[in-house]
Amino acid sequence: MNAAKPALTPEQRSFLEALFKDDAAFEEDALRVYASDASLRRGPVLAMVRPRTVEQVRELMRWAEVERIPIHPRGRGTSLSGGCVPTRAGVVVSMLGMDRIFDISSEDFVAVIEPGVNTLAFQQACEQKGLFYPPDPASGKATSVGGNVMTCAGGLRAVKYGVTRDYVLGMEAVLPGGKLLKLGGRTHKDVIGLDISRMFVGSEGTLGIVTKLYLKLLPKPESSASVLVGYPSLDAALSSMSKVFAAGILPCAVEFMNETVLEILSRTGDVPWPDTVKSLLLFQVDGSRETVPLENARLAAQLDDALWSMRGVGKEEEDRLWAFRRRVSSSSYVLGPDRIGGDMAVPRGSLLKAVRRFEAIAASHGKRLIGFGHAGDGNIHANLHYDASDPDDARRTAAAHHALDDAALEFGGSLSGEHGGGCLKDVGKQLGADELEAMRAVRRLFDPQGILNPGKGY
Amino acid sequence: MNAAKPALTPEQRSFLEALFKDDAAFEEDALRVYASDASLRRGPVLAMVRPRTVEQVRELMRWAEVERIPIHPRGRGTSLSGGCVPTRAGVVVSMLGMDRIFDISSEDFVAVIEPGVNTLAFQQACEQKGLFYPPDPASGKATSVGGNVMTCAGGLRAVKYGVTRDYVLGMEAVLPGGKLLKLGGRTHKDVIGLDISRMFVGSEGTLGIVTKLYLKLLPKPESSASVLVGYPSLDAALSSMSKVFAAGILPCAVEFMNETVLEILSRTGDVPWPDTVKSLLLFQVDGSRETVPLENARLAAQLDDALWSMRGVGKEEEDRLWAFRRRVSSSSYVLGPDRIGGDMAVPRGSLLKAVRRFEAIAASHGKRLIGFGHAGDGNIHANLHYDASDPDDARRTAAAHHALDDAALEFGGSLSGEHGGGCLKDVGKQLGADELEAMRAVRRLFDPQGILNPGKGY
Repeated sequence: MNAAKPALTPEQRSFLEALFKDDAAFEEDALRVYASDASLRRGPVLAMVRPRTVEQVRELMRWAEVERIPIHPRGRGTSLSGGCVPTRAGVVVSMLGMDRIFDISSEDFVAVIEPGVNTLAFQQACEQKGLFYPPDPASGKATSVGGNVMTCAGGLRAVKYGVTRDYVLGMEAVLPGGKLLKLGGRTHKDVIGLDISRMFVGSEGTLGIVTKLYLKLLPKPESSASVLVGYPSLDAALSSMSKVFAAGILPCAVEFMNETVLEILSRTGDVPWPDTVKSLLLFQVDGSRETVPLENARLAAQLDDALWSMRGVGKEEEDRLWAFRRRVSSSSYVLGPDRIGGDMAVPRGSLLKAVRRFEAIAASHGKRLIGFGHAGDGNIHANLHYDASDPDDARRTAAAHHALDDAALEFGGSLSGEHGGGCLKDVGKQLGADELEAMRAVRRLFDPQGILNPGKGY
Repeated sequence: MNAAKPALTPEQRSFLEALFKDDAAFEEDALRVYASDASLRRGPVLAMVRPRTVEQVRELMRWAEVERIPIHPRGRGTSLSGGCVPTRAGVVVSMLGMDRIFDISSEDFVAVIEPGVNTLAFQQACEQKGLFYPPDPASGKATSVGGNVMTCAGGLRAVKYGVTRDYVLGMEAVLPGGKLLKLGGRTHKDVIGLDISRMFVGSEGTLGIVTKLYLKLLPKPESSASVLVGYPSLDAALSSMSKVFAAGILPCAVEFMNETVLEILSRTGDVPWPDTVKSLLLFQVDGSRETVPLENARLAAQLDDALWSMRGVGKEEEDRLWAFRRRVSSSSYVLGPDRIGGDMAVPRGSLLKAVRRFEAIAASHGKRLIGFGHAGDGNIHANLHYDASDPDDARRTAAAHHALDDAALEFGGSLSGEHGGGCLKDVGKQLGADELEAMRAVRRLFDPQGILNPGKGY
């Protein structure tokens, strides 16, 4: 990019203007937001378009393949791994113009929606009909369902209900070149043909642009209850969690927080637990009005190692407990104005050792590990805060972050349980050469010109 | 095959003898069983080999690609759609020699096994450790887990717990040419790279030979209860089921049986329900010892349209109820010595209309529909019995069977919810040309010479 700054030709710009009218933007000011995502990295953008119909997406993809213009699909831009950051100058495709809910069927237990629908709005629309869409990314208030599908989002309830993949029954997707694939549909079971649909889930926008989703729904559980439990140590907390699972209890959520998290919470607001509490678990159980109190009592019987606990039954009371968990991310900035985050997953039984190892790695670089996340899935949010204007701090933080990734792999884990590779994860650390080549060969099959989300994922 | 009957060259036979020693067979008598499966179709077989190590599988696949010899992997041969019937003369690879359970971890809630492990034996091994592998194909006593994975088997508990796909965390698989892919592992969540692993699930042995599986486990529910419920009509039965779901109850199993099923059961053994009962539902709920009685009571409250019911709590009592469901398949032969079966799936809300339509189609061909199956999934086992020695009966039965497939698709359904395409289903009826071509392109990528399970699936 030293010589000529990349730009659209007048013909290319005219094509996009004609196809998208007011749903296209070309000026730097308007494009600024589309150059980045929640990772705060930035990339080059030549234009943004916001399709409202599948035909617009098809025309765009036909054109892009002929013109060899990079296409960067995007939902609500909440990726923490740079999944929405353009790596090569091209057209950002905002899917938020396709946000219709076509059907939420209490007969079929199926929803048919466009990818731009907001996750929380969709969950609420289902609940109004007595139905339940379980995938629940912690950022669901901000995300789109399409973005969740492209990263196979997990979230708080995955330990009981699984991840986004488990609720995708089918989809329509436009491939580079404009072909529309219709995969799966309204049946809860279908084993005819190859399951390309599920391979699209978590593909980080590298195979096609999803334009319609068929999602599986469940009956809505009547009731739920949560308990926030304090322990003298992370060891005590996680051994308590093991006892819960060993007793045959399957909570719908089990979150953990390490000592550093408790400290930042108490530095940024009032906290109800005593100073002797050094680690927290947060459990939720759900079911019918009659069974939840019993499940709650069964759970309590396994938590006798706790120093302290606080209970909540029903949404309002529970929200007070979950507010501490939700406050972690914003409170972390007391440890530094800049963040580098990980969401490694390890086998569940290795969680304690992994967090202890992560803490030691951080300490050996003069850093403190903000360690929390989905304990029931072995999914660790491992954040480091620093001051980017301090080169030594930045260097130590980056070194610690890379060492954390390596450590997760030594435990037989994954670099990411939820966020995806995006453009920030060194996926070659985890994936073997043959596996990576097989994945890339599939990608080339769907996108021979390499125009779709280049530099992302794998 | 008019001119020379296909045969192995002496060099080919020597290669297989050297690689597999006593685990190879070449004589017609020994090969007979490998020419067929539960579909009772037959195909040509030149040799059977039974690998015990992944290295043997890799050498075999290297050799087969060079020699262009068709390879037909096989588990326990229970396919009802001819999934294990060789379509071209080649080598049948029995995976039953690879049946080791490496690990069942109550720390990680993960099992690591070879594909030849028997499903029931695996379930029991998990239960001995207080763990639960939910996929439960009705034929699990006979099947292998590898076979379940290759067809994405569903089964009785799918309505609550999902299907085999939802429990596959990773696998190792040998591709044509001998390359070994290692995908996923012991983490419950992993979103790094393309999800090739899940595409292998349900691929009917067309992409590679699975040699190791990483499976997700849950805590074992302490208790369960079942109720067999009789109604005056299928309409009353299925409207009762809708009330159960609408009340927010998610049973782990909901089976239905139509009037013809009740008739064949009463003609082949004692039955406890009165003559006024024309349709049955069979529900199961599970949970803790404390919650199951409550779930059972909630369920009962929704079943007030029932004419008759019979309850069972705990395995022994429940088995007496489930025995009626299990007897359906063998009892059906009173309607004719030969069977043609379907396992279509339709959107759940269309189940009643679909079964009524199927019954009318059967009647219009002078046949009776044996209709039963997984009502909670909209998955209909639609069997027709006939006498193959009566050409008119055979013709009418085949015509009815094809019309049933067409009708399932008109309801937005699938030709198969569980059994797969095998070599018997006309998958082109369901899949569009572009979708089928995309699936076949992926297949060619993994198997450029077309040696792996040719003529199967899609």
